[in-house]
Amino acid sequence: MQKIEHIGIAVKDLEKSEALFSLLFGNGPYKREMVESQAVNTSFFKNGPNKIELLQGTSDDSIISKFVAKKGEGIHHIAFAVMDIKLEMARLQEAGFKLLHEEPIPGADNKLICFLHPKSSNGVLIELCQDIKS
Amino acid sequence: MQKIEHIGIAVKDLEKSEALFSLLFGNGPYKREMVESQAVNTSFFKNGPNKIELLQGTSDDSIISKFVAKKGEGIHHIAFAVMDIKLEMARLQEAGFKLLHEEPIPGADNKLICFLHPKSSNGVLIELCQDIKS
Repeated sequence: MQKIEHIGIAVKDLEKSEALFSLLFGNGPYKREMVESQAVNTSFFKNGPNKIELLQGTSDDSIISKFVAKKGEGIHHIAFAVMDIKLEMARLQEAGFKLLHEEPIPGADNKLICFLHPKSSNGVLIELCQDIKS
Repeated sequence: MQKIEHIGIAVKDLEKSEALFSLLFGNGPYKREMVESQAVNTSFFKNGPNKIELLQGTSDDSIISKFVAKKGEGIHHIAFAVMDIKLEMARLQEAGFKLLHEEPIPGADNKLICFLHPKSSNGVLIELCQDIKS
């Protein structure tokens, strides 16, 4: 694990939250991206070596919409940058962490990702992410 | 705001969580520190330019114990490193964020800190922190 790649924050209204986080950071998002497979619209802010990803569900069935309905807006997950996601997945599974996918899946912002089940990691939803080499 | 300085994670049992996060990162915490003014025991892990702070309440009245009793273990706050905390506090208050203290207070790990009220920041408890120059 190299660093916190980003923090994912679940929001109700992406435009409103973009305005709020633009005030917080003193600059706007560097990209917006729809991830249709997960029914979310995302917006990314840079903060030094790290990023903040705002996530809004695009349907009531979206995991993000369900999270907001149940718990309200707030921090959804922490993503750690890894060099070799398959190696890290194998290491963490061996160490007793529960993976939510058997193979890495495509994520936003040109990444391969895998989530760890929060029950195996102190209530924290952890994402591993590796840059897709272009 | 320079980077995510740390993520604070509320836990029930610091020793058990230290063992878990040591497995996650592949290395142990670099320090433990009691913050008596906030009734918390903390443990810090380095992850590249960032840190993870585990927090366990030391009494039932501790904010962390109350958080865990209400919401369970999980992410408690995001802390951003700032160069000049008083300047940032003034800027953010002017921008409409609600500060939880009028002046910076001493925090763990040799920092001056200030929290922003989560109601003014999308349900996210945000900490500003500045290194105390030694």
